[in-house]
Amino acid sequence: MKTLIENGIVVTHAGRMTADVLIDGETVVGIAASGSHGWTADRVIDAAGRFVFPGGVDVHTHMELPFGGTFASDDFESGTRAAAWGGTTTIVDFAVQTIGEPMMAGYEAWREKSDGRCAIDYGFHMIVSDVNEQSLKEMDILMGEGVTSFKLFMAYPGVLYSDDGQIFMAMQKAAENGGTIMMHAENGIVIDVLRDQAIKRGETDPIYHAITRPPITESEATHRAIAYAELAGCPLYVVHMSADEAVAEVALARDRGLNVFGETCPQYLYLDWDNLREPGFEGAKYVCSTPVRSREDGHQDALWMALATNDLQVISTDHCPFCMNDHPTLGTQKRLGEGDFTKIPNGIPGVEERMRLIYDGAVSDGRMSLERFVEVCSATPAKMFGMYPKKGTIAVGSDADIVIWNPDVETMMSVDVNHMDVDYSAYEGKTVKGKIEMVMSRGRVLIENDTYHGSPGDGSFIARDTNQYLI
Amino acid sequence: MKTLIENGIVVTHAGRMTADVLIDGETVVGIAASGSHGWTADRVIDAAGRFVFPGGVDVHTHMELPFGGTFASDDFESGTRAAAWGGTTTIVDFAVQTIGEPMMAGYEAWREKSDGRCAIDYGFHMIVSDVNEQSLKEMDILMGEGVTSFKLFMAYPGVLYSDDGQIFMAMQKAAENGGTIMMHAENGIVIDVLRDQAIKRGETDPIYHAITRPPITESEATHRAIAYAELAGCPLYVVHMSADEAVAEVALARDRGLNVFGETCPQYLYLDWDNLREPGFEGAKYVCSTPVRSREDGHQDALWMALATNDLQVISTDHCPFCMNDHPTLGTQKRLGEGDFTKIPNGIPGVEERMRLIYDGAVSDGRMSLERFVEVCSATPAKMFGMYPKKGTIAVGSDADIVIWNPDVETMMSVDVNHMDVDYSAYEGKTVKGKIEMVMSRGRVLIENDTYHGSPGDGSFIARDTNQYLI
Amino acid sequence: MKTLIENGIVVTHAGRMTADVLIDGETVVGIAASGSHGWTADRVIDAAGRFVFPGGVDVHTHMELPFGGTFASDDFESGTRAAAWGGTTTIVDFAVQTIGEPMMAGYEAWREKSDGRCAIDYGFHMIVSDVNEQSLKEMDILMGEGVTSFKLFMAYPGVLYSDDGQIFMAMQKAAENGGTIMMHAENGIVIDVLRDQAIKRGETDPIYHAITRPPITESEATHRAIAYAELAGCPLYVVHMSADEAVAEVALARDRGLNVFGETCPQYLYLDWDNLREPGFEGAKYVCSTPVRSREDGHQDALWMALATNDLQVISTDHCPFCMNDHPTLGTQKRLGEGDFTKIPNGIPGVEERMRLIYDGAVSDGRMSLERFVEVCSATPAKMFGMYPKKGTIAVGSDADIVIWNPDVETMMSVDVNHMDVDYSAYEGKTVKGKIEMVMSRGRVLIENDTYHGSPGDGSFIARDTNQYLI
Amino acid sequence: MKTLIENGIVVTHAGRMTADVLIDGETVVGIAASGSHGWTADRVIDAAGRFVFPGGVDVHTHMELPFGGTFASDDFESGTRAAAWGGTTTIVDFAVQTIGEPMMAGYEAWREKSDGRCAIDYGFHMIVSDVNEQSLKEMDILMGEGVTSFKLFMAYPGVLYSDDGQIFMAMQKAAENGGTIMMHAENGIVIDVLRDQAIKRGETDPIYHAITRPPITESEATHRAIAYAELAGCPLYVVHMSADEAVAEVALARDRGLNVFGETCPQYLYLDWDNLREPGFEGAKYVCSTPVRSREDGHQDALWMALATNDLQVISTDHCPFCMNDHPTLGTQKRLGEGDFTKIPNGIPGVEERMRLIYDGAVSDGRMSLERFVEVCSATPAKMFGMYPKKGTIAVGSDADIVIWNPDVETMMSVDVNHMDVDYSAYEGKTVKGKIEMVMSRGRVLIENDTYHGSPGDGSFIARDTNQYLI
Repeated sequence: MKTLIENGIVVTHAGRMTADVLIDGETVVGIAASGSHGWTADRVIDAAGRFVFPGGVDVHTHMELPFGGTFASDDFESGTRAAAWGGTTTIVDFAVQTIGEPMMAGYEAWREKSDGRCAIDYGFHMIVSDVNEQSLKEMDILMGEGVTSFKLFMAYPGVLYSDDGQIFMAMQKAAENGGTIMMHAENGIVIDVLRDQAIKRGETDPIYHAITRPPITESEATHRAIAYAELAGCPLYVVHMSADEAVAEVALARDRGLNVFGETCPQYLYLDWDNLREPGFEGAKYVCSTPVRSREDGHQDALWMALATNDLQVISTDHCPFCMNDHPTLGTQKRLGEGDFTKIPNGIPGVEERMRLIYDGAVSDGRMSLERFVEVCSATPAKMFGMYPKKGTIAVGSDADIVIWNPDVETMMSVDVNHMDVDYSAYEGKTVKGKIEMVMSRGRVLIENDTYHGSPGDGSFIARDTNQYLI
Repeated sequence: MKTLIENGIVVTHAGRMTADVLIDGETVVGIAASGSHGWTADRVIDAAGRFVFPGGVDVHTHMELPFGGTFASDDFESGTRAAAWGGTTTIVDFAVQTIGEPMMAGYEAWREKSDGRCAIDYGFHMIVSDVNEQSLKEMDILMGEGVTSFKLFMAYPGVLYSDDGQIFMAMQKAAENGGTIMMHAENGIVIDVLRDQAIKRGETDPIYHAITRPPITESEATHRAIAYAELAGCPLYVVHMSADEAVAEVALARDRGLNVFGETCPQYLYLDWDNLREPGFEGAKYVCSTPVRSREDGHQDALWMALATNDLQVISTDHCPFCMNDHPTLGTQKRLGEGDFTKIPNGIPGVEERMRLIYDGAVSDGRMSLERFVEVCSATPAKMFGMYPKKGTIAVGSDADIVIWNPDVETMMSVDVNHMDVDYSAYEGKTVKGKIEMVMSRGRVLIENDTYHGSPGDGSFIARDTNQYLI
Repeated sequence: MKTLIENGIVVTHAGRMTADVLIDGETVVGIAASGSHGWTADRVIDAAGRFVFPGGVDVHTHMELPFGGTFASDDFESGTRAAAWGGTTTIVDFAVQTIGEPMMAGYEAWREKSDGRCAIDYGFHMIVSDVNEQSLKEMDILMGEGVTSFKLFMAYPGVLYSDDGQIFMAMQKAAENGGTIMMHAENGIVIDVLRDQAIKRGETDPIYHAITRPPITESEATHRAIAYAELAGCPLYVVHMSADEAVAEVALARDRGLNVFGETCPQYLYLDWDNLREPGFEGAKYVCSTPVRSREDGHQDALWMALATNDLQVISTDHCPFCMNDHPTLGTQKRLGEGDFTKIPNGIPGVEERMRLIYDGAVSDGRMSLERFVEVCSATPAKMFGMYPKKGTIAVGSDADIVIWNPDVETMMSVDVNHMDVDYSAYEGKTVKGKIEMVMSRGRVLIENDTYHGSPGDGSFIARDTNQYLI
Repeated sequence: MKTLIENGIVVTHAGRMTADVLIDGETVVGIAASGSHGWTADRVIDAAGRFVFPGGVDVHTHMELPFGGTFASDDFESGTRAAAWGGTTTIVDFAVQTIGEPMMAGYEAWREKSDGRCAIDYGFHMIVSDVNEQSLKEMDILMGEGVTSFKLFMAYPGVLYSDDGQIFMAMQKAAENGGTIMMHAENGIVIDVLRDQAIKRGETDPIYHAITRPPITESEATHRAIAYAELAGCPLYVVHMSADEAVAEVALARDRGLNVFGETCPQYLYLDWDNLREPGFEGAKYVCSTPVRSREDGHQDALWMALATNDLQVISTDHCPFCMNDHPTLGTQKRLGEGDFTKIPNGIPGVEERMRLIYDGAVSDGRMSLERFVEVCSATPAKMFGMYPKKGTIAVGSDADIVIWNPDVETMMSVDVNHMDVDYSAYEGKTVKGKIEMVMSRGRVLIENDTYHGSPGDGSFIARDTNQYLI
């Protein structure tokens, strides 16, 4: 089966060109000027006036994540289908080790949950909840399985938290086996002190979630993680960065030539304390960790600037949806925290909305070029997590993960048009430039004419290579 | 006329792939997997086991430059031919305004010297020697001619030097018309004081050229140029950087999101004070400005690191050759400075040697990836000076400027095998990995089977766009 | 003649104590606890409930300075008398070299103007307007005369300006003979471009004086001066600093252990653009260089902070008064610049007001301790310019320059109560804590009972030692 | 009883003067020029040709400290007597809370051990080993007792270590009650990992003590402590700093105006890895934490520089002696760690040697002025811990703690001449300038004619005020 996408403006992070793209089966096999190639195909798609982008790569999602007594409301089926609707054709989710149990058990559980269910290709990072002699050995095994990145938490003491010795030993292991350490860099110990003091003072509204996680708790943890990674000699990828001061730590490390990287998410670029302060319990919609920051302190501008200077390299979603009203099968979610912000499940939906939000930031707000949009949303995440150039670009030999984008139409962000299994959009009512007209995953059309044409199991597990973004 | 390059490993700054490249006339029209495309061609080149690189882009050459009472020994014919031999298919040279004369006169003189003589495509930056009301207006005219970058000198008082007011006004003009300011950032005023004091003390050997230009004279000038560019609001490209401290200034500016860029050259990466101290007058071979730096102070390591962190973005040559012995037609050159280093013409040959030197740094010394090699030697210079993606990459629609590189052979740097019109190589005897087997300029084969197949006038003038590397 | 000051709280930069101070003739000869010393004296002064401070040391005044076609309105007689009224018992003024003439001629002229006229002790810095072989030699001669500091201007091209080569050579000389270089660090060349462009656009009001001297023109010049001083190896004292960014350069240099120092003045701590924008031509009162800065950009807070961290070490006045209305003998002054801010004589009165303004900053605003007040206003300036411990403290062997300060009374700043020969106060109407009840210079009472008891010639020339504040 | 010290050169941190000092009982009551005062006294001491210094203030000693299964070999009697011999007239030692017991119990135990035993005045910091609700309250009680500083350990997990939440809560308490937090800033958690790995590899010699505590473990902990102090809003004093990188963190904090301070000790200024590598088990003599650092990495120079720039403010000893051979009553000490460096008691003697070592650094090596010597060894520690001007200077009202120093004699550091109860000197054989001829504590002569004239109980407990060095 051959497909030819004609006359589109093919945009990769390396540039743009008007060209035809030939797909044979699952793979891009040729790119050529119209009229020069003599190609025929089973299907010819006219992309005149359209951008032809590589599919989005979202390296931070949490489908079905158990958290705070419930589960993230998207399962691998609904979540990856929503991703496809939003122009994302690859996710890397997180398998979770249960404390006291082998890491491989967690990995296998997550494979079981996801295999045969996904609409798009998917890989896994491993959350190491319990660093010990055995789990350090299992890190080697997982490298062989194509799980080449390991996430640790400096936040959430008693739950996902690793202490500094555990973190350091996991980093030493990564230095040895080529893995990349991902870090939730928030000082959970200090945050818990502040949190408990706030609750004691009766400060229970959603805004206190952010107030009890001040920027210095993020920047200190980031500095500490960098220090350990430098000492251990491993690559470090700091997830969901939101504080100016924390990004400054990453920038300093990068100036010194360390393999230190930073990711941010749409919520940190578009939302702020005003959202957390929405009347009633509405602020709970925006409760995630790291928290969204106050706009007046300049965090959003600093993040956009860091994306421009490449001090931040990746935009992912940290997609982790919880319903405001009861979920049909999962029951009470966000409302667990009514009257006590510490009980609000942390997380925000976004896997479907990222590509449009950032595209809009690029073209409407002039925050970045289209090439840079592709770079931060597709090419660099693919490199960072060992999937390039299969994923993240349109080139001969790449997987035919392609999004056809109509720049001349506006669309609205709304729960009414979304496909994620969650009952709100954090960007409700926001109008953005561009419409996703077609989404293709390894040559198969998933989205066309506003209709989903895929089925569970279209997506395959990706055994990933090591970090391709090292210096 | 169609050409097909088969089976090579096509390497651009965006990645590598085994693919066939179809050229129609002067242009790349298709890239496809072998066996998928069904293409035929007038000529088929087998590049199996070879790298297929975009041609080198050297944005800093000085053919026939009048300097210190003589002329750079390569004219546009010999110099561009040597460039082709070395895998460089585009140069941007410098037209020079004569003080007291219109800038356009200088521009036209350089066009006259070069048009119909060049082996490869070429553009011009304009050296603004005399900033005044008229030349500021001429900057607008030159923008229309495709001369979109303007070089100023903080060094060489009384010759090419502009004072700070002139520099600032030229920068204001560039901020207005979209031009990029290139800066020779050395504090010529202070250097002249140190130089005169050295001569007075009888310190006349070539090494004193470097000693009287201490790193702080480069870093101070770099800081000052950045301050003016920030105030004026124009892009700034600092040429031939050699001092760690100066690169640190560029890095700081870039951290703040300024459009400030830095270039270095092979001589700063491979040569040092030991060369300047070679016995007799041999040190004169390595006299250029900025000077090569002492190795023990860590400058070379700092430059390689800055290339890794993208605090330096471009490697050019600052090719400006002068003969050690008398040149047949130009007479005495380097020896003008025997017994008085201040009279040694400043400059070093390199246009033919850059690509091999940096490739070798990449593969033998592990200093960078092949993709980064292409980026700093081809893609970024092309973007920085408005020639991308015509130049600097291999993509549909790009000029077919292509180098076929055999990685399995070693070659030696030597005046005996070079083609530049100069009687020495600064890297005499150095063995490097790789052999350039074929060089193509806009589809025309210039070098093949160790033979030059081009002729003067093959190269065309490039009317350049504005800087495509801005944030 | 012996004087005993009893029961006061003696405050030096090293601390405070309740003690009696015995003065014999011109000198402090003893400090002892009341009731322990058994001293008798010709005069006993009861200072119970009073602070006993060392007299103020103002190391930056310009009496009778020729500037912009007129002269600073205070001559040495009126100016030093006003200083005494304000609790300042030592000034260091500036002798000026005329371009084209020997430096010694300028020095002698200023000695002639001042000798036998001053109410308090005085020394001179030398303004080097014309660095050349002869003036470099004269720097050595002046060191022998007790003129151990040399001021250079990066501002005022064509008038006091030295070019960078001159500056560097003067610094080399200072490195050799132990002198301290004082720098007016503003980029006069760029400022002149901005100024001429502003005038061309019809921007002629006093506020444009500040707008055409943006902070970067101060910080760049400061950076440059530091670079030259580092290369030359001399101490550098940057005068009248007002921009946050410039102070940051001094702080960085100091972190590296360089002998780099910074001074600010009351006008930068208390005045801002609102003053320059006062209606009519009132803004001219506040025209000085460096300019007062906009409050919203945080410069004032940064200066106070730098005083706290000792990144700024000295508060002087840069006293240089010009009348708003015609001066009886000097004629039109500030009004020379009506309709053209570039013609407003640069300067502001302050020698009488500094001590009260800074004391008030200390006690009313909590900006510093009383010890730090003494340090920045007396002790450090005395050390910096080689007069300690004769000046700047109260200790055995020190000159009996003493101020008795009543902390329990408030006074008002106003032209009506001032004694400077100028027709306005820049702080008109401001109420401050504290009243100066007695001022003594070398044991002689100058101010008592709101009456001046001194006479011209009380003050003596101070042959100063070299910088005592070096690390 | 009145004493008059005549004709000496009185040196305080504020300057020097030739003057006579009158002491009445325990207190300095007058300073006056010879011949001006008319004083008589019970005893007249001729100090002609001598320096008269304030007694040394050593704010970091550990007499009788239980550590690693033994006790520091000096008890309060021998240790304070040795201090007196060495010109130190005030110590601040550390009372230790036992985990699980009230803090007051530890305080009382230490008072009991010291009261009536000391040769010189002494105060206590409190080591908070067990931060909990009760001990936080006890911090308030101790403030009332004159114990105004609280030390926490980021090192020694399982022993003195506090976790980050405990540290942060103690800091919040200090912010509230005005206490100063002292921090042993080493990342004990990571160090323990490195230590265990070293032992596993058979790396058991004393040098591995230093190798397993790399500079980054000190700088990271310092950064973290600063972050917590900034968030809590309390003063932070980092003890025994030895790593360049850690001092850089303090310097950065101070540039931002934080009340962050740093102390170093003679061992870090004079000893290095060569000592730790002395043959046999000799290296154990120099095992202390933080460790002495490698000289080639520039730490010593960085520390001296930081003392010059006031980024370090205090030199103390961290006196904590353990015998190399068996101690008569305490048994095996350093040798506990033969074959396993982790068992070597951490500590080094020094209370007797500090003043001479630093004086020698000042006058022989030109590292600082005599005034600065007094400042870092006496005045600033006294201010930092609320004892100024009683302690730390010679002024009217100060305690008559005085050292008469003969600058014309050299003395040798050696266990043979020392008085500490330990069987080695870390500086054995080092010759230094200067001889301590007389030491006086509150007017009582303790040392004269190389004889000790004091007796246990001469020294009194000092109820200290809060930090007087805040900005």
